[in-house]
Amino acid sequence: MSAVDYRQSGVNIDAGNEAVRRIRALARGTYTPGVLSGVGSFGGLFALDGTVPEPVLVSSADGVGTKLKVAFMAGVHDTIGEDLVNHCVNDILVQGARPLFFLDYLATGALAPDVVEQIVAGVARACRENRCALLGGETAEMPGFYQAGEYDIAGFIVGIVSRSAIIDGSRIEAGDQLIALPSSGLHTNGYSLARRIAFDVLGLGVDSYVDELGATVGEELLRPHRSYLAAIEPLLAGGRIRGMAHITGGGITENLPRTLPEGLHFSIDRGSWTIPPVFAWLQASGRVDDAEMFRTFNMGVGLILVCAPGDVDGVLRALEAAGERPWRIGEVVPAHG
Amino acid sequence: MSAVDYRQSGVNIDAGNEAVRRIRALARGTYTPGVLSGVGSFGGLFALDGTVPEPVLVSSADGVGTKLKVAFMAGVHDTIGEDLVNHCVNDILVQGARPLFFLDYLATGALAPDVVEQIVAGVARACRENRCALLGGETAEMPGFYQAGEYDIAGFIVGIVSRSAIIDGSRIEAGDQLIALPSSGLHTNGYSLARRIAFDVLGLGVDSYVDELGATVGEELLRPHRSYLAAIEPLLAGGRIRGMAHITGGGITENLPRTLPEGLHFSIDRGSWTIPPVFAWLQASGRVDDAEMFRTFNMGVGLILVCAPGDVDGVLRALEAAGERPWRIGEVVPAHG
Repeated sequence: MSAVDYRQSGVNIDAGNEAVRRIRALARGTYTPGVLSGVGSFGGLFALDGTVPEPVLVSSADGVGTKLKVAFMAGVHDTIGEDLVNHCVNDILVQGARPLFFLDYLATGALAPDVVEQIVAGVARACRENRCALLGGETAEMPGFYQAGEYDIAGFIVGIVSRSAIIDGSRIEAGDQLIALPSSGLHTNGYSLARRIAFDVLGLGVDSYVDELGATVGEELLRPHRSYLAAIEPLLAGGRIRGMAHITGGGITENLPRTLPEGLHFSIDRGSWTIPPVFAWLQASGRVDDAEMFRTFNMGVGLILVCAPGDVDGVLRALEAAGERPWRIGEVVPAHG
Repeated sequence: MSAVDYRQSGVNIDAGNEAVRRIRALARGTYTPGVLSGVGSFGGLFALDGTVPEPVLVSSADGVGTKLKVAFMAGVHDTIGEDLVNHCVNDILVQGARPLFFLDYLATGALAPDVVEQIVAGVARACRENRCALLGGETAEMPGFYQAGEYDIAGFIVGIVSRSAIIDGSRIEAGDQLIALPSSGLHTNGYSLARRIAFDVLGLGVDSYVDELGATVGEELLRPHRSYLAAIEPLLAGGRIRGMAHITGGGITENLPRTLPEGLHFSIDRGSWTIPPVFAWLQASGRVDDAEMFRTFNMGVGLILVCAPGDVDGVLRALEAAGERPWRIGEVVPAHG
């Protein structure tokens, strides 16, 4: 029997330390004025001086789901962080909050510092774009949990909103109008079904070019989940947004009702937009019915805003001025109307 | 070719919804006055009204590591949440912060609502014990990522400290005294090595009784990571704690220096405490050298406080009054003394 040390048991503390050094450098590039850097090292510190009156913290946790499997197949690791951060940013944005800071949890079977650096570079880039500090995180080496070359990642965001500016849907009335903003692809939802159709039913690979998509399968399925912060932030102050829904797992079907008060439902005009080619291609290839498609995928709709009828034109113009292509997608109706 | 739906592709939205319902009920039991419940549902909301002057948020992310493998072997899922929450609580406590809220990320290959409920019940219990609201979380079903019956879990905590009460080690001087508080076992570190020794080198199972431990391997290795909040909170206000180190991965060797200013090091009296049987048993069974043991395990020391010599007696008495068994473990010395 020979002596057992930690490296033999599958954990490489030196590789872990090297990964941490690289992560720290990337994180520093995201620091905003609130970050108290160089103070201790067990937790990240963020000063709330002079933020908003009656501050309310809004927090959310998310993963990327099986979109990661496509990243593994393609060997592309620098966009997953954008998916993760932007998903979290949108989840608190729909309640009226802007991001303060973000932390990530990255778990692998064996730490490859280069891959860790690519992943965290994507996280840091998205944090900078959302003016959100990457305040900390955990990088865990867990032998026997993940297959070679695989990992899982989770993100945690904290944002802030003044109590009076919380968007909670409570002012929504029947007759209010729904405005949609386009998604940038599948975002981070429906990947178990999409992968099954693309790789199992159709037998394609990530490098297969698909005419209908004008892209390879990998390019299409790895398009980053976009952030709506820049488009929505200028509208947060005026009170014109009565509710917002981030269209994630469960699609419009399950996410839009989450922002509506009891007794109200919605009517969507399915002719109001052209469903992007990736969804039509998946639906036809997998013979998926409409209800399943709308319950699984965003169908080209990333965010839905609820406004009073009199505010619609102004909101549409403000969104267009921010470079968006919004459209009227439907309206709020009585639940049993 | 038959139609493909989401359940066939490995994701069970109904089981997911059932798990979410059970989690919500458990989370409600942890709510503190800051939680704004019933407001929206995309992110969790926490009002900061009347907390502390010059508030600084302290945040940390952690996992449980390969201690999870022992939980899988033993089929015990209700203590992992305590490990996760208490680890996070201690990580922000050492900077002087008390917890506000917690979020978790739980990922499995296939959601078993009963197991999810056991896991989250542990999270919720530990949150209540630390007066920390379980504000939200993500439960991800990721077919093909995790082996049957396995999962990974990460936690994210946000706490608060008044800027002037941050404990950052900056007041530490040579001659300051180190006070230790006992760990409750391995806590959450060194499990890759511990499992290799117990299960591979010794060929034991979780149900094997070990005389030296007076317990089964599973009982010993699953003892929950304890929280030091109740013991330390009464001491946070007085300024007597100049620094604190949570002894986690890297042991005393790597964690204590993180709280010391440059130019200072520490001297530990290894005769000042009896190393608990589990560490002696692992060391002898695995023929692990002392340096490796102290770099991998907590060796019976869960938390170290740094105090001025004149404050030591008072701090020891306060800790004893809180039911702790603290001891003087060493002192701060010049780095090249």
